[in-house]
Amino acid sequence: MAIGSTEMMIVMQESATPEDVERILELLESAGARGHVSTSDLVTVIGIAGERDVIAGLPLEAYPGVDKVLPILRPYKLVSREFRRSDTVITLGETCLGGGHIALIAGPCSVESRAQLLEAASIAKEGGATMLRGGAFKPRTSPYAFQGLGVEGLEILAEARGQSGLPVVTELMDPRHLEVVAEYSDVIQIGARNMQNFQLLSAVGQVENPVLLKRGLAATIDELLMAAEYIVREGNDRVILCERGIRTFETATRNTLDISAVPIIKQRSHLPVVVDPSHAAGKVDLVEPLSLAALVAGADGLMIEMHPTPETALSDGVQSLDPRQFAAVAARIKDVIAWMGKSLG
Amino acid sequence: MAIGSTEMMIVMQESATPEDVERILELLESAGARGHVSTSDLVTVIGIAGERDVIAGLPLEAYPGVDKVLPILRPYKLVSREFRRSDTVITLGETCLGGGHIALIAGPCSVESRAQLLEAASIAKEGGATMLRGGAFKPRTSPYAFQGLGVEGLEILAEARGQSGLPVVTELMDPRHLEVVAEYSDVIQIGARNMQNFQLLSAVGQVENPVLLKRGLAATIDELLMAAEYIVREGNDRVILCERGIRTFETATRNTLDISAVPIIKQRSHLPVVVDPSHAAGKVDLVEPLSLAALVAGADGLMIEMHPTPETALSDGVQSLDPRQFAAVAARIKDVIAWMGKSLG
Amino acid sequence: MAIGSTEMMIVMQESATPEDVERILELLESAGARGHVSTSDLVTVIGIAGERDVIAGLPLEAYPGVDKVLPILRPYKLVSREFRRSDTVITLGETCLGGGHIALIAGPCSVESRAQLLEAASIAKEGGATMLRGGAFKPRTSPYAFQGLGVEGLEILAEARGQSGLPVVTELMDPRHLEVVAEYSDVIQIGARNMQNFQLLSAVGQVENPVLLKRGLAATIDELLMAAEYIVREGNDRVILCERGIRTFETATRNTLDISAVPIIKQRSHLPVVVDPSHAAGKVDLVEPLSLAALVAGADGLMIEMHPTPETALSDGVQSLDPRQFAAVAARIKDVIAWMGKSLG
Amino acid sequence: MAIGSTEMMIVMQESATPEDVERILELLESAGARGHVSTSDLVTVIGIAGERDVIAGLPLEAYPGVDKVLPILRPYKLVSREFRRSDTVITLGETCLGGGHIALIAGPCSVESRAQLLEAASIAKEGGATMLRGGAFKPRTSPYAFQGLGVEGLEILAEARGQSGLPVVTELMDPRHLEVVAEYSDVIQIGARNMQNFQLLSAVGQVENPVLLKRGLAATIDELLMAAEYIVREGNDRVILCERGIRTFETATRNTLDISAVPIIKQRSHLPVVVDPSHAAGKVDLVEPLSLAALVAGADGLMIEMHPTPETALSDGVQSLDPRQFAAVAARIKDVIAWMGKSLG
Repeated sequence: MAIGSTEMMIVMQESATPEDVERILELLESAGARGHVSTSDLVTVIGIAGERDVIAGLPLEAYPGVDKVLPILRPYKLVSREFRRSDTVITLGETCLGGGHIALIAGPCSVESRAQLLEAASIAKEGGATMLRGGAFKPRTSPYAFQGLGVEGLEILAEARGQSGLPVVTELMDPRHLEVVAEYSDVIQIGARNMQNFQLLSAVGQVENPVLLKRGLAATIDELLMAAEYIVREGNDRVILCERGIRTFETATRNTLDISAVPIIKQRSHLPVVVDPSHAAGKVDLVEPLSLAALVAGADGLMIEMHPTPETALSDGVQSLDPRQFAAVAARIKDVIAWMGKSLG
Repeated sequence: MAIGSTEMMIVMQESATPEDVERILELLESAGARGHVSTSDLVTVIGIAGERDVIAGLPLEAYPGVDKVLPILRPYKLVSREFRRSDTVITLGETCLGGGHIALIAGPCSVESRAQLLEAASIAKEGGATMLRGGAFKPRTSPYAFQGLGVEGLEILAEARGQSGLPVVTELMDPRHLEVVAEYSDVIQIGARNMQNFQLLSAVGQVENPVLLKRGLAATIDELLMAAEYIVREGNDRVILCERGIRTFETATRNTLDISAVPIIKQRSHLPVVVDPSHAAGKVDLVEPLSLAALVAGADGLMIEMHPTPETALSDGVQSLDPRQFAAVAARIKDVIAWMGKSLG
Repeated sequence: MAIGSTEMMIVMQESATPEDVERILELLESAGARGHVSTSDLVTVIGIAGERDVIAGLPLEAYPGVDKVLPILRPYKLVSREFRRSDTVITLGETCLGGGHIALIAGPCSVESRAQLLEAASIAKEGGATMLRGGAFKPRTSPYAFQGLGVEGLEILAEARGQSGLPVVTELMDPRHLEVVAEYSDVIQIGARNMQNFQLLSAVGQVENPVLLKRGLAATIDELLMAAEYIVREGNDRVILCERGIRTFETATRNTLDISAVPIIKQRSHLPVVVDPSHAAGKVDLVEPLSLAALVAGADGLMIEMHPTPETALSDGVQSLDPRQFAAVAARIKDVIAWMGKSLG
Repeated sequence: MAIGSTEMMIVMQESATPEDVERILELLESAGARGHVSTSDLVTVIGIAGERDVIAGLPLEAYPGVDKVLPILRPYKLVSREFRRSDTVITLGETCLGGGHIALIAGPCSVESRAQLLEAASIAKEGGATMLRGGAFKPRTSPYAFQGLGVEGLEILAEARGQSGLPVVTELMDPRHLEVVAEYSDVIQIGARNMQNFQLLSAVGQVENPVLLKRGLAATIDELLMAAEYIVREGNDRVILCERGIRTFETATRNTLDISAVPIIKQRSHLPVVVDPSHAAGKVDLVEPLSLAALVAGADGLMIEMHPTPETALSDGVQSLDPRQFAAVAARIKDVIAWMGKSLG
């Protein structure tokens, strides 16, 4: 499949010889690409046009005389705003996400028991949530922390969906669990730590479920979009991007919510973007201000941790809203959605 | 002056001896502080109470047997929310900042000429700005960039204030210019690069003008508050904090706006906080979404770069709004202020 | 399995009530842990002792009245220096790594062809390398870049091992490939992007092969050690840690080599640590100075990219040494090993 | 003064019109610069040649149709390796720094008393130090920490120089102290927090003393070199650069020593570079491995904190070597210098 033309710029060193330039032009030609040389007093520059998948494989910086290689076009195509001008809207039963439809995804970090999740689903539904979240397989930094209920958790999620009518979002960590996760859940979440688990990305590109792809702790916005490209090029174009904070030197919050990522993703991509203020801040108090900020900055949805009784949570209790807090935050969220002239779900 | 009690916690190494503990208790006692020892199966911990200025000078981590020293209370006092529960409100002529009064500070990066600044002031005033910004002394990364008009710039600022009635904010870079800057301007700005220029902080602590203190590129929120403490303890408690983005690995924006800093500063300090979306993002397109986000997250004001003709600006043209863009963004800002039930100025 | 005692410290808020303290003590007791309360003028602190796997699951920060929870002991056990005082030495056929035996792991980023790899193996052997590296499955940021030869690459690696006698290191990206990778290779590499792919970590904990675990771009040293703990607790204690640079704001290098990680890992863990200067710097020129620096800082080995003809490499050509460069760098490496009184392999 | 030609590259947006291009060419022409247009299927690119001080002032990114502006040449000139091929060697009395002469700068963080400093000087001298460091004016994050002895500290430094024969390095924080610091000390240090205090840089550019310029916590290597350019263009070309760690997410060390900065600075600049392992690591244990690493990576010197009795130090005791530790580290440093065929001082 031809991916379309791309373009890069090679800046030669001052000391580069005409032979150096010639050698690069030959390499480009042999790869089916074209080079265009401009020379001035100080530097020689070679512009390149050709197929992206070919040029990406050329070791241009290793050639003698090359100072640097500057990419000019973005390194993704199918997820780019240029590829599709209109916003991607994802429909799940009766609810939508994108194109003015705001999703409110709520629920506990982990599915801990049938009773806990059914109660969480009912609180979520009542507060106005449009989807239910809950982890059955949990990635944990420490091997000594609770790792999730596994398939049993998936079954509970499916039951909660049946009762509440809310589509269910849950995380996939291992390609060997793809079939069962795809069967029991609506939206498959790829966690931040797996954003560049390319096998997993390719795998979820081959199922029907929409994918919620979380930004890695140290991933740039363009890397997030390239990870999404892995999924879309396999045929699944229902990808929801999720900003959940990046790792910086600041320790007052668990991560630093990169609020600017929201408008930038909307400029660069047609895919919807949601914000997870719970993981970004790691603090209950910050969920409301960050939720409102995300929405006015253009986010298509929010993903909020809520637990019937946070003080008994097996994971992330410190950042989970309790039912009363969730109702209050959800009310403010509905206010700002109305003020913006958008709709919930 | 007694600064008040403080408290730290020393965790001893497993291999620490009773003599190691004894030696620390003696050090504390000789310094007029008190230590309280707790011992368990695994570790011995010493809690410390005493005067902050005394304890801060003790080299506790250098003592034999010490594993780590954990601060328990925050390292600032006068700027803390505990010290003053109510919001600090800063009044400048007829305008206010803080306590529900939102400031809109607008103007060019640099004062370039009398005509440019008077026009900028008139556009700012018309759009609803409550203060005028403009740099007379400019910190520039490159020695080959425009460095500002100096005292001539200050005179132009004073003239613009006279015409527009807007209080003027301008940067001080050198303690030798304090007197003239304090005379010609209303609010003295300390730039991000000088946030830990402690001589400058002490100097502006001794004048009457309010101080707008910008967060350093790599400064934590607590370091920003400690820098403010330098000013306040000299007697000037009219300090405005400014979040303007921190340096991270992300290159899509000039800096990463730390939106969470807004609610965190409001929790930890009584001082007002404004956000500068222009420097954070470095892009005109992002000024509106980041401005709205800052306000709903609780900011007491915004500081926005605007230039009558950005394409001729001698600095920061790329992030300056033009008059038409400024009017549009200012209108949205007024909408959100009204929606929040706060007032402009 | 009991993991052993752990210890944390809870600092209560100034406003905490005796009931808040009581509630926490009850929680601890019900979980089989113990709390020890110390109170002073300003704060109340609760020390905790108990089993790590229990305490790790308690949502202490979510309890009313809690200000912060400070961990006092490190969150890993089996990989810690306290658990085993002597250095872990890993023996592979006739070569060793750790305890004064320095490994020199060299080879191309990717296995591209039989001819390329056999030549690389021969150059590596001649230069003094003690192991051969080469990727059969390649993680690539862009889906349009070369993704590796897969099982064919593994077969070529096995052949190269047969010819050269060098043990082979290759990356595993997908648990579904574990059996085949374990069969064809000696050391299984877990790449930086998969450092927190916990399923993969658990999987390689169950095979015989030593594991080379690369530090994630945004992983702290303690997170690297916890990732190693995931492997070791499954029964595989032959883990080699690899520092390969972290992501920072600096753009002059691909990543920032955290040279301090070497002595810190040696203090905190008994596991050997190698340094990958090629990926850290992303520049051929820096491989020699960073290799020497790593060794004098205490590294147990180096992992260096080398290619018979870097200008034709399908990946990472820009940072691969050519045969002549490799010979020169290897000679300097042997010099410094001799000077330090250690041995190669 | 003409600064010499420079070159940048403007990449136009796909939607840019011929008028957009024309407008930029006119701007360039009116500023005395030249533009060279290349057009391909996908993008139009404008190369620029002209005087650096002119082009730096043009708001090119603010022009309609401009996508991005890519600098091609480095933004400094006088400090660049291209400007002067041979290493700058700085001579101070009988000792040298640069060009194969390694400096060992040792002493306490702060001058605390006459007795303390004279003893430190004698220990430094005995261990082989070639210069003595000690702060009379101290930048402290907390206003409640010891701020230094001021002029009295300078007098003590001068006395210690007289007794030991060691040139003295001390920090300048305020341009109002320039005269007295320049008089009493040999090398003037600009601290990390003042690396972009441009008034201070210009001021020290006008005295005779060599300047030791520390890299800012969040400064790139190129920003450090631009800060040095501020000094050199004022006429003082005896600048010593100092790598002392950058701020990252890692908390195991006080800062992350960027060891790669050493060879990169040597490539890009003719100025000597020293490394400060004490501030980078913040731990006594790491001083030796980081010192050796710095030297084999190509550093021209080391700056090490040492205190006659670290446990009584008024600042930085935790990272100061005691006399016995200093003697041991200095011996290893001398070993590695000899092994490298360089000379101490």
